[in-house]
Amino acid sequence: MTHPWHPISGGITAPSGFVAAGITAGLKASGNPDLALLLAPEGAVCAGTFTTSLVRAACVDLCAERLLASGGQARAVLTNSGQANACTGDRGLIDSLRATQVVADLIGLAPEEVLICSTGVIGVPIPMDTLLAGLDPLVAALDPQGGAAAARAILTTDLVDKQIALEADLGGRRVRIGGMAKGSGMIHPNMATMLGYLSCDAGVPADVWQPMVKRAVDRSFNAITVDGDTSTNDTFLAFAAGSPLNPELYGALEAGLTAVSQHLARAIARDGEGATCLIEVRVEGAVDEAGARAIARTVCGSSLVKCAVHGRDPNWGRIVAAAGRAGVPMDPEAVALWLGEHQLMDAGQPLPFDRPSASRYMRDRAAGAYLQDDTVEIRLVVGRGAGAGTAWGCDLSDQYVRINADYTT
Amino acid sequence: MTHPWHPISGGITAPSGFVAAGITAGLKASGNPDLALLLAPEGAVCAGTFTTSLVRAACVDLCAERLLASGGQARAVLTNSGQANACTGDRGLIDSLRATQVVADLIGLAPEEVLICSTGVIGVPIPMDTLLAGLDPLVAALDPQGGAAAARAILTTDLVDKQIALEADLGGRRVRIGGMAKGSGMIHPNMATMLGYLSCDAGVPADVWQPMVKRAVDRSFNAITVDGDTSTNDTFLAFAAGSPLNPELYGALEAGLTAVSQHLARAIARDGEGATCLIEVRVEGAVDEAGARAIARTVCGSSLVKCAVHGRDPNWGRIVAAAGRAGVPMDPEAVALWLGEHQLMDAGQPLPFDRPSASRYMRDRAAGAYLQDDTVEIRLVVGRGAGAGTAWGCDLSDQYVRINADYTT
Repeated sequence: MTHPWHPISGGITAPSGFVAAGITAGLKASGNPDLALLLAPEGAVCAGTFTTSLVRAACVDLCAERLLASGGQARAVLTNSGQANACTGDRGLIDSLRATQVVADLIGLAPEEVLICSTGVIGVPIPMDTLLAGLDPLVAALDPQGGAAAARAILTTDLVDKQIALEADLGGRRVRIGGMAKGSGMIHPNMATMLGYLSCDAGVPADVWQPMVKRAVDRSFNAITVDGDTSTNDTFLAFAAGSPLNPELYGALEAGLTAVSQHLARAIARDGEGATCLIEVRVEGAVDEAGARAIARTVCGSSLVKCAVHGRDPNWGRIVAAAGRAGVPMDPEAVALWLGEHQLMDAGQPLPFDRPSASRYMRDRAAGAYLQDDTVEIRLVVGRGAGAGTAWGCDLSDQYVRINADYTT
Repeated sequence: MTHPWHPISGGITAPSGFVAAGITAGLKASGNPDLALLLAPEGAVCAGTFTTSLVRAACVDLCAERLLASGGQARAVLTNSGQANACTGDRGLIDSLRATQVVADLIGLAPEEVLICSTGVIGVPIPMDTLLAGLDPLVAALDPQGGAAAARAILTTDLVDKQIALEADLGGRRVRIGGMAKGSGMIHPNMATMLGYLSCDAGVPADVWQPMVKRAVDRSFNAITVDGDTSTNDTFLAFAAGSPLNPELYGALEAGLTAVSQHLARAIARDGEGATCLIEVRVEGAVDEAGARAIARTVCGSSLVKCAVHGRDPNWGRIVAAAGRAGVPMDPEAVALWLGEHQLMDAGQPLPFDRPSASRYMRDRAAGAYLQDDTVEIRLVVGRGAGAGTAWGCDLSDQYVRINADYTT
């Protein structure tokens, strides 16, 4: 990292003044924790980015409307996991309104200050009696050390919880950013991840915070793909609350914001359903950053590339073929390609390379799943432009098919 | 079929005057047939549609340039399977030029009248000595009954050959259309299928034939998806040669053209790598036909929908979620959904349905792979517009992953 931020513990509740809770209300048949609450300090601003799907869950509509109406003022977000509350008709909105109303009453907030995110099976309504019965103990459990419990309660098919906190000295002042996320399948966010949350204890005006969050999301959650399926519920909410930060330090703050978001986004790709490794594709030489990222994401999303990586097969032709269909200008005759340290192409033509060694490189990455060295790195030069960008994904395994062939049955 | 066409045998060589051949030249390690040649009668016009990928094989460049330069005049097409001749640099073009030159000399044509298609592994050059040695016996094998041999020689990972011929009485005259195709993986054509060929023994001017072929391709090959990966080599070539057809019969001819193209396109989707059934998605109520087809194709291409069908799981939420991210206007509150005869949604809300029976419907379709009843039919109403369109795909199985994880190793 080329910025002043260093990791600390505490997750979403590491920043001063934020409290959270996660409990088991009984919404999931598994008996795992399924209800989470995050409460930001008074005066918090909140930036949200949401799924671009035309089929949106009721809770997404509610979040987007409330943030728009308030100009980015919100204090709390409730998350229920088990039912997505999408395609549930009028009842979906009524349930979302009711849940946030009760939370607001219990904490002493206006209903408009409370947001709600849902995740789980589409088309199944939330068992409201169960949810409402859980809100009392949930609010009672709010705690400055509650980040870990909240991070667990938002999960569905995830194998691991995803949280991080960073701290920096910005102009002589300690600033902290915390984050948590969930997501494992239906991951191809087109505004935000499945569900992601960020907290920050520096004060930033809403009109600065929103575009700063948007840029960080574009470089993180909008740069990952697991299976190409944009969800009905994708939501990212970022709260900032604290004494105002000197505007000269906004650049440093954004670096931390981006680092937290990228950590969480990579964690989601790494935990992709059935995945055995993380794939990182860096594209250079494109016309601009967005074009580079679009090519990188198309490569990351290619079923054939994902299968080749799963088989630890340095089948580089699929990488270039995927890049070619990204819909972004590239110069096929300038293409150069690296897999880890192995250069496979130069000036648009294949180079001889040590195939067993390239395959071994990928196999070693697999072995270290969840460790530092679990990442298969692909670097692709597509021309002579200045645009560079990175995307992350995971391999496609037999296990992914089994998980998703058997999900509701 | 609501048109005068009926099926006959003979495939690509069923129309008068067309001859073809398929032999084993030794390009494939498997020893399967790997070299095919199709020769159209004198005066033939040829329409071509090609991959939109920016990374195109040398043979695609050559076909496109020759058809452009001649205004759609071509007589023959050579196909080699085993090596795609993509990403092979200058050598790729030199090899394509050489192969077509030798074929032209052997038949007595100008080199510009001979086209070439290649399919197989990307980045591997064609073993030219082997190919050139095969051209003499290939030309010698040209035969009016050669359609079946040619259809076999163009295959790669396909399990079955794909050919069809239709005949109709058009204004008192017998007209025949023949076709063959190959493709099983890397199938998400964005101009044409992997490789498809069509012959017709009615004369049609090139400037009528080209747009007629384009419309048929949009309604067939451009409406299928197996894995979302547009190939570097996608090519569809359609030859018409014979005494001129009365322009009043162009509509009837186009119906036959569309029927042949849809048969071949469905055959490719049905033979998708690892597939156990064909998925047909019909979308109605969209703004226009193209929008309807875009939604249908997004549903067909969703990994989660494909996995649900593989698991015979009526997980309809994934269908609506996929439709929502197609980037095409739809009205979520007007959505209605059918799986076979089972209605699952109406007016945007879920309906109670007999889940075991819906699951059994899909299981029965699977059992009949390659038979009439192998098709899982999904019908989705997305609004009140007049646009309707259909797309085809296949389920995603563990087997797909195994095939593509182990392809070159």
